Amino acid sequence: MKYCSQCGHTVTWSQPPEEDRERYWCSHCGTIHYQNPRIITGTLPVYKDRILLCRRAIEPRIGYWTLPAGFMENGETTDAGAIRETWEEAMAQVEVQNLYTLIHLTPINQVYMFYRAHLPEASFGAGPESLEVALFKEDEIPWDELAFLTVRRTLQHFFHDRKNGQFPLHVSDITPEDRDHFFTHAP
Amino acid sequence: MKYCSQCGHTVTWSQPPEEDRERYWCSHCGTIHYQNPRIITGTLPVYKDRILLCRRAIEPRIGYWTLPAGFMENGETTDAGAIRETWEEAMAQVEVQNLYTLIHLTPINQVYMFYRAHLPEASFGAGPESLEVALFKEDEIPWDELAFLTVRRTLQHFFHDRKNGQFPLHVSDITPEDRDHFFTHAP
Repeated sequence: MKYCSQCGHTVTWSQPPEEDRERYWCSHCGTIHYQNPRIITGTLPVYKDRILLCRRAIEPRIGYWTLPAGFMENGETTDAGAIRETWEEAMAQVEVQNLYTLIHLTPINQVYMFYRAHLPEASFGAGPESLEVALFKEDEIPWDELAFLTVRRTLQHFFHDRKNGQFPLHVSDITPEDRDHFFTHAP
Repeated sequence: MKYCSQCGHTVTWSQPPEEDRERYWCSHCGTIHYQNPRIITGTLPVYKDRILLCRRAIEPRIGYWTLPAGFMENGETTDAGAIRETWEEAMAQVEVQNLYTLIHLTPINQVYMFYRAHLPEASFGAGPESLEVALFKEDEIPWDELAFLTVRRTLQHFFHDRKNGQFPLHVSDITPEDRDHFFTHAP
């Protein structure tokens, strides 16, 4: 951020009067440009004993497999956003169930939310951001080719919880120490 | 938003190339200025059979009672933000338990998250954004003087769930139709 979006003057990175931390702000018009984490919302689509995954057609992690997810938009709910992303990336119409994982990525200021979702029919296809979309049984999951640690964790929780038939919300963090693993396929 | 924060030129509100909706963007340098919902994180602090509420010293809803909550900051988790806000507004050190309510306020692009929290000691005070802070039993809650519908809902869920001793996550929406009630004290 270089210029004030309100008045066009150059912004400063420093602690504004009456604020408790450094922020981008404009000493000309006084506007403080708050920056806050963004929500990534998606689904874990389940069809019978299989999970729907998408192989990414875009960076980051092009060619790797992911659960359908993307930035929550203004004017929608997290569950509506999850349904929208699942349609856009996997051309699949899911019925969302419970909020299943909430994962903080503090190094990049993102909050991931995955809803467990029911896929009533094996109807899907590759949207513009996907190279291919496919259903995987537990022993078919391409663990070494997953795009993100958030996806790995969500799948691990699911296969563990499925044995008990209970799917409570799991809240966890990915810290700076995990950052090296964020894009890797290390277990 | 009037000016591009990257190059200082005037921004446009229209559908940029390769985007699926209208956004603020700069036709000079091509930067798209995405706008996404923000997270408000807070706690429901419980001390024995009482709840800690704060009377607001700032707008909106100055003079009305609220649970401690505020905007999640970059670099923190939702639970860390909830603990921070509880300290800032109520000078209380809580131990967070489970994520308890997640409420979408689509009319103003906010996502509220309240954690149920244990207040181990009756130690608290009014931070700079509070006029006073106090503990309330269920029959003492100032229902007609609550600041926000999100607070009302969270308290209602708690007193209902307390009868059963089970406190699952409650996800709900405040829609444009509810907007008139957002600031009101209507039941």
